[in-house]
Amino acid sequence: MIEPKILKGFRDFLPAEALNRQYVMDIIKKTFESYGFDPIETPALEYLETFQGNIGEDERLFYKFEDYGGREVALRYDQTVPTCRFVAQYQHELAFPWKRYQIQTVWRADKPQKGRYREFIQCDIDIFGLTSALADAETIAITINAYQNLGFKDFKVKISDRALYAGIEYPVIVAIDKLAKIGRQGAIDKIISKGYSQTYAEETLARLANLEPNDTLKTIFDYLDKSGFDAKHYEFDRNMARSFSYSTGPIWEVEIVGFDSGSVGGGERYDQLVSRFSRNDIPGTGIAFGFDRTIEAMKELDLLPHKSTVAQVLMTVFSPETLAISLKFANKLRQAGINVDTYTDTEAKLGKQLKYADKKTIPYVIIIGPEEESNNQAQIKNMHSGEQLTLDQTQVANWLKVSLDL
Amino acid sequence: MIEPKILKGFRDFLPAEALNRQYVMDIIKKTFESYGFDPIETPALEYLETFQGNIGEDERLFYKFEDYGGREVALRYDQTVPTCRFVAQYQHELAFPWKRYQIQTVWRADKPQKGRYREFIQCDIDIFGLTSALADAETIAITINAYQNLGFKDFKVKISDRALYAGIEYPVIVAIDKLAKIGRQGAIDKIISKGYSQTYAEETLARLANLEPNDTLKTIFDYLDKSGFDAKHYEFDRNMARSFSYSTGPIWEVEIVGFDSGSVGGGERYDQLVSRFSRNDIPGTGIAFGFDRTIEAMKELDLLPHKSTVAQVLMTVFSPETLAISLKFANKLRQAGINVDTYTDTEAKLGKQLKYADKKTIPYVIIIGPEEESNNQAQIKNMHSGEQLTLDQTQVANWLKVSLDL
Repeated sequence: MIEPKILKGFRDFLPAEALNRQYVMDIIKKTFESYGFDPIETPALEYLETFQGNIGEDERLFYKFEDYGGREVALRYDQTVPTCRFVAQYQHELAFPWKRYQIQTVWRADKPQKGRYREFIQCDIDIFGLTSALADAETIAITINAYQNLGFKDFKVKISDRALYAGIEYPVIVAIDKLAKIGRQGAIDKIISKGYSQTYAEETLARLANLEPNDTLKTIFDYLDKSGFDAKHYEFDRNMARSFSYSTGPIWEVEIVGFDSGSVGGGERYDQLVSRFSRNDIPGTGIAFGFDRTIEAMKELDLLPHKSTVAQVLMTVFSPETLAISLKFANKLRQAGINVDTYTDTEAKLGKQLKYADKKTIPYVIIIGPEEESNNQAQIKNMHSGEQLTLDQTQVANWLKVSLDL
Repeated sequence: MIEPKILKGFRDFLPAEALNRQYVMDIIKKTFESYGFDPIETPALEYLETFQGNIGEDERLFYKFEDYGGREVALRYDQTVPTCRFVAQYQHELAFPWKRYQIQTVWRADKPQKGRYREFIQCDIDIFGLTSALADAETIAITINAYQNLGFKDFKVKISDRALYAGIEYPVIVAIDKLAKIGRQGAIDKIISKGYSQTYAEETLARLANLEPNDTLKTIFDYLDKSGFDAKHYEFDRNMARSFSYSTGPIWEVEIVGFDSGSVGGGERYDQLVSRFSRNDIPGTGIAFGFDRTIEAMKELDLLPHKSTVAQVLMTVFSPETLAISLKFANKLRQAGINVDTYTDTEAKLGKQLKYADKKTIPYVIIIGPEEESNNQAQIKNMHSGEQLTLDQTQVANWLKVSLDL
């Protein structure tokens, strides 16, 4: 016997959790589509060189290996880089400004900890072909709208611009980005550890403290204001730098008040990334939502429905002789749009079938024995209240649709 | 510059194709849920030993490698084996008979050819905890229902039972399974090549020709009949054996008439598979749909909607001064359930915006200039017919909902 277990940092999802994920996914997709963004998909495995040289110091987290053909390949590390490869590859088929969303799994060989997994889903929206800050603003607007649609009241997009940090080298930007987490002294130590002087570290932090929004940021704030969003959902954050090496302009991160496992999403402009794959410069901007962290925040704030099965009705089987009656009645309810589980074992006593419905948390059970059948009736049991009533078979579908709020 | 390209056997999906996939996925999911089957998810990467020793001769197709922790891991090869590991691991939390569906990607380092990829999606339904042939029958019923819901008229589930081939060794079963493809002489040659005699090969094939449905198969056919399915959708096939080494009872495959790239799905009973991971015997049965082949068959039969964007309306921006008007009007339409793309560049002339709508195949365009705004009106252009009309702003949402059939 092999011990049933999974790899550290990976997860199984039982029905209740898989249903939570579908619920959140559906709201996010609907929001993206309401802004006219179209879906695309890219492969889970790509040539390693597609990913290399884009990400910065985190490239050590790639899941990479040699395939049977001797090719160096890597599992999808993010969706921005493959999409840039995609834009370069199919640029002549796409309508620019090109707006797409992508919701797929990514893999990072990171140290697992609370809210951080080796396999997780990202939800990305990006716009290609526009240098206008209005494009950055639109992806931020969609983000705000998505978190509103998920039921969050207290959240904030923190916005800055890499242009404000002109002249600061990348290793120092990484240190600045950790400022909120490691504090002023921590940041100074980190900058020094990268080979810079104490004076330089202190001067850089002093310079940061005096930053004000530039015209680009003003355009973004103006767009969000004109879109009618409450100003509490966005703010300038001079101490946020993002660690991606490909950021070239505005940068932003989503923070949920009261959720302290870090930002639930982040984005940026990356105008040079497509040109790694194309002779044509195609600017890009967009955001990646952390799907899993968003779900964790929703759990903490009790924003998820409490549902552990899709089944709305258990159609019992009274005896082997009445199997056909049960199967046909179940099909009739399905045609009315109701999810009906039938008990697929004619040897099981009614009590066992009811126990099953109870354990699976199916809200209603229907029983049609020979007596009910001869009267064209059905018994319905509400598994929550225990109430039981008898209805004409023709009334059952409508009664259930009302009771289930369908 | 890196040449933008993907690995052989892997695919990118542009919006039109990604939307086809979502369309098919939604119908399949809805069908599964209408029978009360709940979703689960398992990781893309598992310990290699989880997959080893279950699949038969195709184990050479595993995508496997050593991770940073020195563990031998493999990409998900199918969904049946991980689900059996899952059932063993969480058996005390599940309500039996346990019915689940799983729709995830699998990877096989197979030789790419028409309709065969190295990365593809499987749609699985399985029932655990029942030895009754009614459980086999239910998964076949759901399959028939799913193909009906997808719009197929002419398809067939071919059904047999491994019990009928009792005494025939596994390598010979593999040869029998290829009978339809390689013919009688081909099968004989293949059996001989596995070290059996000419006489044995001929006797085995002669024995096959005389097989008749056993009680198990009769129970399945009876269930399908009682469910009200047209008998043209299922039949006994004495020459079908399936090559999975874990099959222990009824086996079946779905064939679409007129689609000659092979079966689009197949299933079986596998009563010993969970016991590889558990001291408790838990019988299982179910089917895997080939998602990609099903889509190809739908293309050949023209069963897919022709849609290449989710955007239903382009909200143009007349000038930088009217940006706020356009943004707010777009939001109003979104609240009415309409997908609205806004043009995110105030420098673009109207002609450029209309060209974009045309290339992206957005059906309607809305224009609100200063004149329309002062009259509380909006212009709507039908991009297909070229017709243009002026409406009161308050009427636009309803007019669009009727025109778009929402």
